Amino acid sequence: MVFSLPWAWPQLGHRTGENFQQFETNGFLGLIYSILLSIICWAIFWRIGRHAQGDLYRREAMAVVGLSWLVATILGAMPYVLSGSSNKIAVRMFDSYQLPPQVYGHPVSPLNDEQYALVHSLVSAGARGLPPAKLAEQYDAKVRLLTKEAPDADFQAVFDGLTELPSWRGVLIAPGEDPYSPLDRADNYRIRAVPMNFADAIFESQSGFSTTGATVIANLEDPISLPHCILFWRSSTHFLGGLGIIVLFVVILGQGSAGKALMRNEIPGPSKDGSHSRMQHTAWMFASLYCGLNIVLTGLLWLLGMNFFDAVCHAFGTLATGGFSTYNASLGHFYQVNPVSGAWIEYVVIVFMVLAGSNFTLLYFLMTGHASRLIGDIEWRYYMGIIIGVTICVMLFGMVYDDFIVDPNTSAITEAQLALRNGLFQVVSVMTTTGYGTHDFDQWNSFGRGVLFLLMFVGGCAGSTGGGLKVIRHILFHKILFLQLEKSYHPSVVRPLRLGGKPVDDPDLQTNILIYFSLILVLFVFGWLAIVTLEPDATWGATDEHIEHKLIDSATAVAATLNNVGPGLGIIGATQNYANFSWWTKLLFTALMMIGRLEIFAVLVLLMPRFWRSR
Amino acid sequence: MVFSLPWAWPQLGHRTGENFQQFETNGFLGLIYSILLSIICWAIFWRIGRHAQGDLYRREAMAVVGLSWLVATILGAMPYVLSGSSNKIAVRMFDSYQLPPQVYGHPVSPLNDEQYALVHSLVSAGARGLPPAKLAEQYDAKVRLLTKEAPDADFQAVFDGLTELPSWRGVLIAPGEDPYSPLDRADNYRIRAVPMNFADAIFESQSGFSTTGATVIANLEDPISLPHCILFWRSSTHFLGGLGIIVLFVVILGQGSAGKALMRNEIPGPSKDGSHSRMQHTAWMFASLYCGLNIVLTGLLWLLGMNFFDAVCHAFGTLATGGFSTYNASLGHFYQVNPVSGAWIEYVVIVFMVLAGSNFTLLYFLMTGHASRLIGDIEWRYYMGIIIGVTICVMLFGMVYDDFIVDPNTSAITEAQLALRNGLFQVVSVMTTTGYGTHDFDQWNSFGRGVLFLLMFVGGCAGSTGGGLKVIRHILFHKILFLQLEKSYHPSVVRPLRLGGKPVDDPDLQTNILIYFSLILVLFVFGWLAIVTLEPDATWGATDEHIEHKLIDSATAVAATLNNVGPGLGIIGATQNYANFSWWTKLLFTALMMIGRLEIFAVLVLLMPRFWRSR
Repeated sequence: MVFSLPWAWPQLGHRTGENFQQFETNGFLGLIYSILLSIICWAIFWRIGRHAQGDLYRREAMAVVGLSWLVATILGAMPYVLSGSSNKIAVRMFDSYQLPPQVYGHPVSPLNDEQYALVHSLVSAGARGLPPAKLAEQYDAKVRLLTKEAPDADFQAVFDGLTELPSWRGVLIAPGEDPYSPLDRADNYRIRAVPMNFADAIFESQSGFSTTGATVIANLEDPISLPHCILFWRSSTHFLGGLGIIVLFVVILGQGSAGKALMRNEIPGPSKDGSHSRMQHTAWMFASLYCGLNIVLTGLLWLLGMNFFDAVCHAFGTLATGGFSTYNASLGHFYQVNPVSGAWIEYVVIVFMVLAGSNFTLLYFLMTGHASRLIGDIEWRYYMGIIIGVTICVMLFGMVYDDFIVDPNTSAITEAQLALRNGLFQVVSVMTTTGYGTHDFDQWNSFGRGVLFLLMFVGGCAGSTGGGLKVIRHILFHKILFLQLEKSYHPSVVRPLRLGGKPVDDPDLQTNILIYFSLILVLFVFGWLAIVTLEPDATWGATDEHIEHKLIDSATAVAATLNNVGPGLGIIGATQNYANFSWWTKLLFTALMMIGRLEIFAVLVLLMPRFWRSR
Repeated sequence: MVFSLPWAWPQLGHRTGENFQQFETNGFLGLIYSILLSIICWAIFWRIGRHAQGDLYRREAMAVVGLSWLVATILGAMPYVLSGSSNKIAVRMFDSYQLPPQVYGHPVSPLNDEQYALVHSLVSAGARGLPPAKLAEQYDAKVRLLTKEAPDADFQAVFDGLTELPSWRGVLIAPGEDPYSPLDRADNYRIRAVPMNFADAIFESQSGFSTTGATVIANLEDPISLPHCILFWRSSTHFLGGLGIIVLFVVILGQGSAGKALMRNEIPGPSKDGSHSRMQHTAWMFASLYCGLNIVLTGLLWLLGMNFFDAVCHAFGTLATGGFSTYNASLGHFYQVNPVSGAWIEYVVIVFMVLAGSNFTLLYFLMTGHASRLIGDIEWRYYMGIIIGVTICVMLFGMVYDDFIVDPNTSAITEAQLALRNGLFQVVSVMTTTGYGTHDFDQWNSFGRGVLFLLMFVGGCAGSTGGGLKVIRHILFHKILFLQLEKSYHPSVVRPLRLGGKPVDDPDLQTNILIYFSLILVLFVFGWLAIVTLEPDATWGATDEHIEHKLIDSATAVAATLNNVGPGLGIIGATQNYANFSWWTKLLFTALMMIGRLEIFAVLVLLMPRFWRSR
């Protein structure tokens, strides 16, 4: 039964973008091949596993969870590779004009004003490119912006000059040069698009299933480089990942004694004794609740003016606390298009992010009319308290430093509104480990950025789709520390650990909490050191100033993947992505996302030789 | 008896710098007043404590250690305040010419070339200032360097122009303007020196006693602003702090059951049962060993060409793993003066730093001819292994990135020599938490800087003067994590924790180790957030680029004080100091140094209301 679990997922992907002008042959075929591959895999595993006994011990259960997650990730990556989707173009420009651009990851000599204007126009156009007339227009405008004068040479001359330089040969494509290009971009000037390699695809797939929401795709809005059906598959991995977590949580975590404490003892079910049927009932109940919330949010977003495709994708991203959007500006896109409905969309998403970060057992009580159980829950109170407290601090600091406004003459009320909406959204988004962005928090003051970084480690409630360490672990952690401090001067005092007034009598709980924090610490530290060591400085640009940021950016990248958040600070900030990391770093991030999602143990034990040897 | 412990220390300070040209009246009087204050305090405590019983319980012992350390710190700070020593001058210039200077911590408008040249000349001269002829010469040279032309206006005109600006009034002092200035600088142009305030003095005193070696004194080499007798007091706080730690370690840590595991069971002593006399014997033995090593190193440094004052001060800083130097360039000064003897001094100091970071019990065995006990010790093996392993990595990365050489044509052998000496020195200096610098490691590649940051948390061996978490805790921590990972899939397996082949039977040890790591983590995280929040951005200069560094610099500052290392990265890097932080941040650092030095518990419990209430 458990063996069949992962294979259900990729089969959902066979949807093509009906509402687009062109049938996406590549994307469609990529999905078909992926589905065939999945069926073959399922058949092989079924043959291997058909004689197995029904009983699963703890060790086998861990191996099954870890390995099937791995297989699901690999199969989930197939659509990206087989559809030939591209995640970035071969030239990367930095925000600062002074920094030389990179071609295929290597810095090249800086460009003069006219070359810069031309390349910048082509880079912003993306994989689709620009027809000659449009390019001439943009080139002219950009040169005037830079030099305050009309260009000396026309774009054709600059283009030809660039193509004669070795690094740029084959990167800049003139109309008609590329016989394999689709019809609608054969007439355009373009920069070569780089297809997603295996590491990119694995990263994106793991990011989806683990509901992280970190992406390696620089341009989401170009259906030529990324078909909409693949984009939908990308969002549906969130849905499947969230569903998997909710179910796994019941099956695995509900069994252990520490799991019980984390999960509340009172999971409702038809029988109090039959653990198997009760577990099945709970799993079904949670799954329906999860699907129901997705449907409700889809409807609301649709009513607020999103098209159906966007509404479904963003609902998936919200309730799985994932964070994949269908636009480059993430959820902020809708505010840019229409400030009124956009603001409403943000508030609705805030509410559903808060719900998605709450314990599903408590949500079930809420649905069945026992709201007091939700409000009385100690973890949920801390959860809401942290959100409200941190939001107030972020708002105050942000208003002092004028982080939320551009025009210094904005009235105080407008500024407070902006601070409330953007501050609350970012705090909820990071705390629940969703990772949607509406505002470039990388421009915030250092308190705001520091506190967002720490919030990544808090995460949602136990029994939610949120990642991170979970609020309940933090509560217990701090209680344990206080008890131990007291014990240090009164060694004979035995005071039980209390949670919401009731003593927690599990003797292993204390060790389990401490070990969990320690493992996260060790993973974070060694992950950080590995990234700092392995990732070349060129990823941060070519100047010393930017290399300075490597230490802090790497730390946030490790935190964002290990806790399944998504965006970090600096080069992986709110408006950036993971596309420019090298493939080995991407695989490392993939491992961190999986470790964080499966709460460490199920993955780490797979790496221990003793795990496989022992009987 | 314990009550009298702290008062012994400040009384050692009555030494004046006989070998200097001028009798340091201010410094001498400051020390005399401080000694009188200490005697008064001692008398008061003696009167209060004379009727107390002889028995100390665990709770009382913790309070005594924590409080007497606090009193010692305050009394140790008196010489700095009462002697009127100044730690910085009112104007701060940044390395980059583009950044506007700060006057009393506030950024002012940027200077033109001539103003910059004038202020820069005065700032580099320090509190002593420059006579008119010398100033004219330097001003002229600096303007020519900046503009490649002769100055348009003479320095007197520029000086008068600057003094008319509000921020600069009273900061620039022309000859004869200040009637209170000492004779030898009444004829000089100067920038006002800022006397150390209470926070500065407390910071410096705590940094000394806790053997951290972080300093708030920007210019150590100017006897006008900092008398040599105060400088000697500063270094002798290291000696006293190191001695206190060695003795405290025996008295306090040797009692607990976890302490025994940390300390080896076999402390030699005359009787196996009488714990009191045996403890006294051990304390005397360790104290003599410590003093003896100080004398040997003083002698060696003196033979290598240091004068007696420098030799004593650097021996104090080395064996206490402190790091206070008597020169702005730290120990690198001697290499700059004489590369041959300077290199030898560095190698000798490396050896003694390694010794100071080793367990004193093992050093005792070494002295008595049982070298095998030292070499066979599991902690010492790991300690040496980490030093050697990290040094090799740092050397390799440093050579790839050309961190150690300026001239690209340097031969490979010379580069390897430089890499070995500088890399080994910095690794040992940071790992043993000494904090001497011979090389600006802030210019290293990001791997080198990242690994130095992590080394801060490793620290020396248990039972040494080194700070940090101690190597033995790291060994046990990793063993515990592996055991628990195994337990996660084999819950029934009970495997004892083993250290060097022998099982460790203390059931509390596992919790203690985990709690210690957790507390360090919590202190680090909240310390970092507090610094990021409380310290104004202006400390990092006035541009956005530099504010970016606030997050990482603050993290290293917290790590460097909590682990008693000293220098960090960025604005507190190898060539920098803590002078420019605000007073509240300095007090926070002071608290972190004390917490780190007394191994957390003895300080934190003092902050718990329940500690004072309970009986």
